[in-house]
Amino acid sequence: MKTAIVLLSGGMDSCVTVALVREAGYDVAALHVNYGQRTQQRELQAFTDICDHYAIRKRLICDISHLAAIGGSSLTDTTIVVSKANLTSKEIPSSYVPFRNANILAIATSWAEVCGAQAIAIGAVEEDSSGYPDCRDVFFRAFEHVIATGTKPETTIRILTPVIHLSKADIVREGIRLNAPLHHTWSCYQGEGLACGECDSCALRLRGFYEAGTTDPIPYAIRP
Amino acid sequence: MKTAIVLLSGGMDSCVTVALVREAGYDVAALHVNYGQRTQQRELQAFTDICDHYAIRKRLICDISHLAAIGGSSLTDTTIVVSKANLTSKEIPSSYVPFRNANILAIATSWAEVCGAQAIAIGAVEEDSSGYPDCRDVFFRAFEHVIATGTKPETTIRILTPVIHLSKADIVREGIRLNAPLHHTWSCYQGEGLACGECDSCALRLRGFYEAGTTDPIPYAIRP
Repeated sequence: MKTAIVLLSGGMDSCVTVALVREAGYDVAALHVNYGQRTQQRELQAFTDICDHYAIRKRLICDISHLAAIGGSSLTDTTIVVSKANLTSKEIPSSYVPFRNANILAIATSWAEVCGAQAIAIGAVEEDSSGYPDCRDVFFRAFEHVIATGTKPETTIRILTPVIHLSKADIVREGIRLNAPLHHTWSCYQGEGLACGECDSCALRLRGFYEAGTTDPIPYAIRP
Repeated sequence: MKTAIVLLSGGMDSCVTVALVREAGYDVAALHVNYGQRTQQRELQAFTDICDHYAIRKRLICDISHLAAIGGSSLTDTTIVVSKANLTSKEIPSSYVPFRNANILAIATSWAEVCGAQAIAIGAVEEDSSGYPDCRDVFFRAFEHVIATGTKPETTIRILTPVIHLSKADIVREGIRLNAPLHHTWSCYQGEGLACGECDSCALRLRGFYEAGTTDPIPYAIRP
């Protein structure tokens, strides 16, 4: 059976990515990183709950807290305010963690090369998102070329991005179609008990559920 | 003044890279990673000694011990034997740490983007080396494209590889010309008190000093 390493943050997009990759016939190995983000504990809980739901045995949890030491993001530096959502802005928001996805993909590639996985899957969303540069298709295609040049000649690893061109509403619909455990997922950038309802990530998620004609099962402090 | 982040393992190649990058007019920030390698403590000592020698104040030491957890290399897995040198083999040796350089370059890029560095320098050697795939020019050029696509539009970071096409003898000569502290460097894969003299890294280094017509200043258990 072919194996895919799924980057499983514990958010809705990565959870639906697990569901889609399983549907495509892959055995899933799950990678999670703690990078000193504000909601680290809550995300790790979501990761564990989703892995348990799908009985995923191959799990790797990595600590890359140097991203917090490097800083430059409101997600890892508590002196930078997490902006309230502005879904019409074209600016890259303060929540951008510089080059985070490359750091995580590099770990995933090391793991994939050693365990013989054929693919790495990531739940990045390009259009209906915050505009992070490392969530774009052009970045993932460039990273595939880095994998091809930086691993053994016999190693072949594809990067799967099954939700990259979906809207958040489409992702909700796919999650429901595949009976994904969306109630276990966590997307909020700043709350760990109740989702704040005000950050970019909450706003995108809530709009997705609204446009899909359904209700988000997780608890919010504020529902706009 | 322009800044370069130098990946400073503490080996001879990275030490000479610091010297060359300084000569080219860059202020140097030094990045070191502990990845669970056998000689982790000795390499960290070499890093510190070289930084002290050059009065480098900007230092970042990161722990990516998940590379050891992932395994697949004799450098991080003590159940895999460090092969004796075979400098004529075309095979990738067991000391290859899967995709290690991509992991380190990703950290360096995050740091460079936040601190505004214009370049990342790495002392990789392509021809006169062990044949690791992530030490080749084609890999670094691919990684530059990943940086261009995965960071903010205003971020521009070059990857400098000033010793990539040099022989080990040339690197020794450049080190001597620039008065680099080669006595502080450490290259051995398995020894921390005395260099073993038998691993690939020792063999390449000793041949370099021999061909440069000089003597390596560090202590060896065996000098072939």
